[in-house]
Amino acid sequence: MIRFNNDYNHGAHPAVLEALNATNHESYGGYGLDEWCEKAEAEIKKYLDCPDARVHFLLGGTQANYTVIASALRPYQSVICADCGHIHTHETGAVENTGHKIQALPSRDGKITAAQIAAEAELYRASDVQEHITQPGMVYLSFPTEFGTIYSLDELKAIRQVCLEYGMYLFIDGARMGYGLAAGSCDVTLKDIAALSDVFYCGGTKCGALFGEAVVLTNPALMTGFRSCIKQNGAMLAKGWLLGLQFYTLFQDGLYFEITKKAVSYAMQLKDAFAKKGIPAYIESPTNQQFVILENSVMEQLSRKYIFEYELKIDEDHSCVRFCTSWSTTQEEIDALVSDIAAL
Amino acid sequence: MIRFNNDYNHGAHPAVLEALNATNHESYGGYGLDEWCEKAEAEIKKYLDCPDARVHFLLGGTQANYTVIASALRPYQSVICADCGHIHTHETGAVENTGHKIQALPSRDGKITAAQIAAEAELYRASDVQEHITQPGMVYLSFPTEFGTIYSLDELKAIRQVCLEYGMYLFIDGARMGYGLAAGSCDVTLKDIAALSDVFYCGGTKCGALFGEAVVLTNPALMTGFRSCIKQNGAMLAKGWLLGLQFYTLFQDGLYFEITKKAVSYAMQLKDAFAKKGIPAYIESPTNQQFVILENSVMEQLSRKYIFEYELKIDEDHSCVRFCTSWSTTQEEIDALVSDIAAL
Amino acid sequence: MIRFNNDYNHGAHPAVLEALNATNHESYGGYGLDEWCEKAEAEIKKYLDCPDARVHFLLGGTQANYTVIASALRPYQSVICADCGHIHTHETGAVENTGHKIQALPSRDGKITAAQIAAEAELYRASDVQEHITQPGMVYLSFPTEFGTIYSLDELKAIRQVCLEYGMYLFIDGARMGYGLAAGSCDVTLKDIAALSDVFYCGGTKCGALFGEAVVLTNPALMTGFRSCIKQNGAMLAKGWLLGLQFYTLFQDGLYFEITKKAVSYAMQLKDAFAKKGIPAYIESPTNQQFVILENSVMEQLSRKYIFEYELKIDEDHSCVRFCTSWSTTQEEIDALVSDIAAL
Amino acid sequence: MIRFNNDYNHGAHPAVLEALNATNHESYGGYGLDEWCEKAEAEIKKYLDCPDARVHFLLGGTQANYTVIASALRPYQSVICADCGHIHTHETGAVENTGHKIQALPSRDGKITAAQIAAEAELYRASDVQEHITQPGMVYLSFPTEFGTIYSLDELKAIRQVCLEYGMYLFIDGARMGYGLAAGSCDVTLKDIAALSDVFYCGGTKCGALFGEAVVLTNPALMTGFRSCIKQNGAMLAKGWLLGLQFYTLFQDGLYFEITKKAVSYAMQLKDAFAKKGIPAYIESPTNQQFVILENSVMEQLSRKYIFEYELKIDEDHSCVRFCTSWSTTQEEIDALVSDIAAL
Repeated sequence: MIRFNNDYNHGAHPAVLEALNATNHESYGGYGLDEWCEKAEAEIKKYLDCPDARVHFLLGGTQANYTVIASALRPYQSVICADCGHIHTHETGAVENTGHKIQALPSRDGKITAAQIAAEAELYRASDVQEHITQPGMVYLSFPTEFGTIYSLDELKAIRQVCLEYGMYLFIDGARMGYGLAAGSCDVTLKDIAALSDVFYCGGTKCGALFGEAVVLTNPALMTGFRSCIKQNGAMLAKGWLLGLQFYTLFQDGLYFEITKKAVSYAMQLKDAFAKKGIPAYIESPTNQQFVILENSVMEQLSRKYIFEYELKIDEDHSCVRFCTSWSTTQEEIDALVSDIAAL
Repeated sequence: MIRFNNDYNHGAHPAVLEALNATNHESYGGYGLDEWCEKAEAEIKKYLDCPDARVHFLLGGTQANYTVIASALRPYQSVICADCGHIHTHETGAVENTGHKIQALPSRDGKITAAQIAAEAELYRASDVQEHITQPGMVYLSFPTEFGTIYSLDELKAIRQVCLEYGMYLFIDGARMGYGLAAGSCDVTLKDIAALSDVFYCGGTKCGALFGEAVVLTNPALMTGFRSCIKQNGAMLAKGWLLGLQFYTLFQDGLYFEITKKAVSYAMQLKDAFAKKGIPAYIESPTNQQFVILENSVMEQLSRKYIFEYELKIDEDHSCVRFCTSWSTTQEEIDALVSDIAAL
Repeated sequence: MIRFNNDYNHGAHPAVLEALNATNHESYGGYGLDEWCEKAEAEIKKYLDCPDARVHFLLGGTQANYTVIASALRPYQSVICADCGHIHTHETGAVENTGHKIQALPSRDGKITAAQIAAEAELYRASDVQEHITQPGMVYLSFPTEFGTIYSLDELKAIRQVCLEYGMYLFIDGARMGYGLAAGSCDVTLKDIAALSDVFYCGGTKCGALFGEAVVLTNPALMTGFRSCIKQNGAMLAKGWLLGLQFYTLFQDGLYFEITKKAVSYAMQLKDAFAKKGIPAYIESPTNQQFVILENSVMEQLSRKYIFEYELKIDEDHSCVRFCTSWSTTQEEIDALVSDIAAL
Repeated sequence: MIRFNNDYNHGAHPAVLEALNATNHESYGGYGLDEWCEKAEAEIKKYLDCPDARVHFLLGGTQANYTVIASALRPYQSVICADCGHIHTHETGAVENTGHKIQALPSRDGKITAAQIAAEAELYRASDVQEHITQPGMVYLSFPTEFGTIYSLDELKAIRQVCLEYGMYLFIDGARMGYGLAAGSCDVTLKDIAALSDVFYCGGTKCGALFGEAVVLTNPALMTGFRSCIKQNGAMLAKGWLLGLQFYTLFQDGLYFEITKKAVSYAMQLKDAFAKKGIPAYIESPTNQQFVILENSVMEQLSRKYIFEYELKIDEDHSCVRFCTSWSTTQEEIDALVSDIAAL
């Protein structure tokens, strides 16, 4: 069986594992106060234009999301996101568990617009019973989105403008950041992400690391007490250098971008194969996740050889499924699937 | 100016105030452990068929709502409600502040259906990633709803059936219970409410008391530790007898039902007056809240003499507003408004 | 039976009830946005020297305590208090329920010292693992304390100094403020309380009101969003004018101070009676709560005619009990008890 | 520099890293639903006598602690622990952040007794104001304790008895479980730990794994919803097999016990060396942590070659410090330090 079900079904990129092997006999200080975390922070910051940014390494996406949100907001503040946002749909109410309401807006292609966000924030500003409703204090976006789509630079700039206008932080979940930046249609750089957001992260779990997310705080207002929040939320790894080392390995020579770019090129081969066969996309995605609508019989046929993710029922005879490439996908795996699609 | 803006703009029904005056020189035990709370519980239970029910007196609706919900749910459980539900729209995220997600469903006439609730609950039951989503542990209804409408007995029975089927508690917010039961079209009794729900409350604040809500627990599973939750949530009044005394006064001879019935009859006079004038209802309400669509010029004209609540903009020239009667409304006030409507 | 068990066993001072009667036919805006709340705020501020202070009226002490604390602190911050502090011992973990740790210090005569607080705060400042411990962000004092004792002006000034030095808010719980200020040995004024704290409250529940606490914010940093926190914590009374009216009545002509002063003079008569009889005080209290050590046989004898509060076992034959006077205590009640003590 | 500062300053035991290397090219299902987690659970259960126990793999100690506690307790319940308990002193208020109060009892040699626990629980049971205080719902112990000491079988049995008597769960934090079981004086087996507690964990982070704690639930009442709590608290690793694989490697042939036993034998060599030199122990520890009282000059001298942890000031001239061995300590490192101690 070949797995296209997600982008976290393999261990680590060989270079990452090699680094862990090479340093396993060394000893380090704990809790992220070590040379590798320092070096990794420096490497990541080379891609930004924020000399004062601070980088913290957390273990996973859910943890990063609720820790950032709980740290940033006052008790009566809420966070705006797309109705398909990961914090709203797949994190077991982790954000609410920290006490904060999520204001989910209808999404299109996985995205929400500056206009929608402004309208939602305006509801609060214009309200004459403000104390009876939560104040939107943050906007949460995913780049790329849950459906693999990406925001354009103009879209991000417009959202940023709304955030400034209404006094909201902008938080960009980059669990799949590498795949988003590698999209052919992407006109955004990590520098833009950093300049336009108050906090974002570059995912490691799905982009070549064993685990880990590099949370970048660019807004100084968010820095005070952030390490305390990390610890309080169980997100401070005792052997913190394991995270620093992995991110150093991924960022120091651009490996992060190289392997996610390759994964996206593989996804484009799949996209083309489906298109050529007349199998429609559920959403047009330029990144490593491809959502297509299969006849159920085809779905069943492909599932004998490939593992992919069932998403939802389209009608009695059709289903939406996801094929996902990753840094660990090989050309052989792609060739097999492309050939099997063609032969359907 | 005559106030039709809400049903909590006056103090207490004279009988309630009289009771407070009559007992002001007496001394009592604290924290709801007094004879008046006992007597009030007994009076309320006369209207139910639940000999083992327990009645607790809290101070207000928001407090009652989040205390009940936080007491009933495990950390990963959520509560289903209508998208216009008070807990979702007007309580500053109080429920989320206790750690629980609200799953809001689209409402029609302020209501949600058994089928909708079942579908939402089924999403969880049928999920193969249950640990990634919250488990609906409770359904929250308002009787009457935010728009003054009421559930029929059949509707409540169907919802109850779904709750049993999916292992969810049914919680009925009765901040305006008296007005709901007094509706001409109402085929539900307080006995039904008690039999079909696990917990509900009869509001005092809006129905003749200075303040206070009588929370009735019928499901024994909800009783353990409930007083601890009341105290922890700041909802235990030191001079608890003030609540017991008010509810005893309201329930001991049916005053609660008498005054809310009168208020509803007043509302029906308004309803008729608007209808006669061709002023359309926004939603057909059989209770003390009447939502109508006024031309803005008419709205302005009426607002010179009456205070009523602006709800939302319908179009450039029309607005939805609410006229609310209450236990304190007088026939003179109604006559004045009816006459002014006729003269428009 | 005559009640000396606490200071909240009667309704309201007649003047308060009279005010409620006199205005019961009037109608007001809701949620504390009414003329009585405004007037009450103005009256209270006459006793302060803080033109920019803001006064909010909450319903009870537990509610006031956790709402203030939750509103003021970041998630990783804790509150320092005496080990006998009400928030630590009698509020069912309400503060922890909002997510904050209490750092309880050993008390003497119900009080903690500036030196103790500084030492505790220094533990954090000097720590090289700050992220692993909570940061004290607030000091909570009671004036008077749980044992009826009071802080001197010098003590408060010293504590204030420590708070400034370590960046902590000072919060003074004044549930019995009136009784404290009325103590013969008190060298503190309400002006001092306001000048030395960031937030404090004057209790109504125990000092003549039916219920209610007047929370005074003097530090502007605490004002943003405070009404939202009130609502979120179920502490916003729909008929907010009921609170404003009561506090206006109590403060407009100094009634608050007059009735608590009388209660303290009654307590001094009890204190003298016990001393004359050779019955030792458990703690020397200059306020309305008197803690004495009774032989169990005496305790039993007195309990046939008086209700008072058992505190703790001293030894096999002796117990500490509390006799509490209040605004509702009468000279006749005092005379009876004084005479019975003399006759023991 | 040689590190004796803690037991988590190196990567993983070579066998663990080898297992990661050997499986890195494989793909697995996510979130702990994989063959390695299953196998690891089976291996761990071989050491227990609880066929129905369930094993979950979390990432670190703080996370395991608060997730277990938050999952087990009702909102008004608290957890009893030693005043030196890790949850009380070094986790940034993580337990309080989930809403629960900690009731810390004075410890002796890092331990609390059954009698102390019973007395604390009795305070609640005997209280006539139960709703005003938190209910102890769980006892938290560490095995070994923060000071390296261990509970005897009789002590654990007595504590268990108290827990049963008062309806409290017993939770044993075994972040250093392997070192505790390896103590010469230990008369407790993992079977006993499982039989006497409702939930416990075997630490991996400090005992040979890169990271991870194996949480064992033996009480079925704690199992419902536990995976939801794991996810909600950010404790569910996407690549869960990384945890299963590590624990399988450590437990499948007893490696876990072998390497911790060796570390304890090293610690005993240090203990003897200090004793021989007349350097007093701060606390007599039979496990891998040795606390000794050094003259400050000696402390400084040793710190030129060794890294160890400063604990606290004893007097002007003496300090308590900790020397910690681990699975990664070598005989050469021990020999060096022993020789340097002898030469002092």
